[in-house]
Amino acid sequence: MSHTPYLLPEVADLATLNDAALPARLQALIDGKTKPLGSLGRLEALAVQLGRIQGREQPRLEAPQVVVFAGDHGLAARGVSAYPSDVTWQMVENFLAGGAAVSVLARQHGLALTVVDAGVRHDLAPRPGLQIRKIAPGTADMLAGPAMSAAQCQAALAAGADVVRLLPGNALIFGEMGIGNTSAAALILARLSGQPIERCAGRGTGLDDAALQRKLELLRGVLARHPGHPGQSGVSEPLDVLATFGGFEIAMMVGALLQAAAERRVILVDGFIVSAAVLVAARLRPAVLQRCVFAHQSDESGHRLLLDLLNAQPLLQLGLRLGEGSGAALAWPLLESACRILAEMASFESAGVSDKATDKDA
Amino acid sequence: MSHTPYLLPEVADLATLNDAALPARLQALIDGKTKPLGSLGRLEALAVQLGRIQGREQPRLEAPQVVVFAGDHGLAARGVSAYPSDVTWQMVENFLAGGAAVSVLARQHGLALTVVDAGVRHDLAPRPGLQIRKIAPGTADMLAGPAMSAAQCQAALAAGADVVRLLPGNALIFGEMGIGNTSAAALILARLSGQPIERCAGRGTGLDDAALQRKLELLRGVLARHPGHPGQSGVSEPLDVLATFGGFEIAMMVGALLQAAAERRVILVDGFIVSAAVLVAARLRPAVLQRCVFAHQSDESGHRLLLDLLNAQPLLQLGLRLGEGSGAALAWPLLESACRILAEMASFESAGVSDKATDKDA
Repeated sequence: MSHTPYLLPEVADLATLNDAALPARLQALIDGKTKPLGSLGRLEALAVQLGRIQGREQPRLEAPQVVVFAGDHGLAARGVSAYPSDVTWQMVENFLAGGAAVSVLARQHGLALTVVDAGVRHDLAPRPGLQIRKIAPGTADMLAGPAMSAAQCQAALAAGADVVRLLPGNALIFGEMGIGNTSAAALILARLSGQPIERCAGRGTGLDDAALQRKLELLRGVLARHPGHPGQSGVSEPLDVLATFGGFEIAMMVGALLQAAAERRVILVDGFIVSAAVLVAARLRPAVLQRCVFAHQSDESGHRLLLDLLNAQPLLQLGLRLGEGSGAALAWPLLESACRILAEMASFESAGVSDKATDKDA
Repeated sequence: MSHTPYLLPEVADLATLNDAALPARLQALIDGKTKPLGSLGRLEALAVQLGRIQGREQPRLEAPQVVVFAGDHGLAARGVSAYPSDVTWQMVENFLAGGAAVSVLARQHGLALTVVDAGVRHDLAPRPGLQIRKIAPGTADMLAGPAMSAAQCQAALAAGADVVRLLPGNALIFGEMGIGNTSAAALILARLSGQPIERCAGRGTGLDDAALQRKLELLRGVLARHPGHPGQSGVSEPLDVLATFGGFEIAMMVGALLQAAAERRVILVDGFIVSAAVLVAARLRPAVLQRCVFAHQSDESGHRLLLDLLNAQPLLQLGLRLGEGSGAALAWPLLESACRILAEMASFESAGVSDKATDKDA
């Protein structure tokens, strides 16, 4: 593994949001609304976060974009998924034809949908809604060497940032597709967390017990092939880990996340694989996390560990494990609701409603 | 307490849904969609339930109605809430003016909103969106006698059924407003579950520790004033319990729930108080539960117990404790999504996507 220095996208202005007064002002606005204090629960914290990302008391979500990053994985040929690699490109066709879960949910909520070919092992015909940014037709076999070269990783980061730069709106919903990518995400998680692979990898799209054991055995082999420990030598630095174990779709998401965060867009994070990209991005620039809303806790077994590592509290827990951005699309209306509560709810004063009684009356 | 026999609304056709073949057909349709088996989690069970309620493979939600039942409580004068009783009618005005949380969320999701004055202690001016079905201006003090007479309870049940009969659409979202009604709901739960009041009653709109202790003391006194045990004599039968401890808004919801269930409308249940009405309705006609979707688990402390008693798995857990139907309105898009997944997602066959690999390929 080479240690070429990586150039991050232009994220010089990816600053920590530190207007301490704004969160207090936002909470005061919410507390003045016609409802008992705190009674809108998680929606209140969400409204404060959205206001904080946008730096204003009335956050508004404009032209929200679902972006699904797709790529293939060399490791898939060794049988880490219940599905063949061809499903990656077939599902890209399905996304674009409007028949996939994320297509249906994006349509329901009026979300624009862009699919990015980050490295699909198939020649996709150009068409509206598809961005062909193919780094290579699938990553290499991680048992033989790193999944991608440093130059490829660099190219993927830059392409991801570029995708975001060219999209309108102030909110991005991240999704992904790639047969084999729960393995890639689990390896990234294992190396960056220092946790054993058994805690990080799960059944993916639906492996049975025997197939899961084979997957774990294979992933242990991959980790042994690329030794390293956090804070020590070897494959441990975030971008080395990304290049060694990642997919092109994951690397492109890291670039896109950094760019989106630098532009102070609201980032809605889907499931396990997008969260793994967030983990890499956050190790590079911790302030990314301030811009991230975590949509749901996936049923993929490593997701809880990953969310804990990110100190993330997801909005939904619906037992989803589909990816594509489907869980994020399901959570989207909650973000809209949070904005509307700030913008449209009456205050005790404006509505002429009596505020909390004194202790004597209560 | 009199034991006048109650006449339930016309619920003769509130039959158990027992087409065993339909759920299997619905699940087979879902399993054929382009996604790993089971990967849409709770949304899949929801789609099956909606199809089953409507008795068809393509459930559709038409003209959904939010109905907020409002009423006042005699016990409120003794200080069981952090807010004065006047807040009930002030919030009704707020609902109708569009400034309350449920107004904002109903608007977001295109839900019609009807407020029912079941027994508000105030003369509300008639206007569109308000149904005045006042049984009396607030219930009586439960420490002195039952909250309502058997005749009043009967009238509330009938009015609730009538409200539903006159509303269009095939889905009802139940909400409520009534200062003091977490106490009424907790008493109903305590008596019908046989659990101690400490497990059933909580902080409502936001009592502090001392006020909560006073509330519990008061509710213990109410229970002692009206003894009874499930399955034994005394105030134990569901409708006796409802009349003794209920509010007019709760009794009216029981009638509305029975009617909605008989019409096979989809019923979306909000928080603790609506769930208490469902408990009464389910004790009268267990098949009501087949038509109920539970929107969220409230932060009100007795709700988990109540949901367990109903064997209910709520969709959301967002720490809400506002009532009004706000949690149900937040969950509404998930019901739409479930229908769209059945109607709009491609199948493996139609999309030309390879289905799960054989074991050899996996």
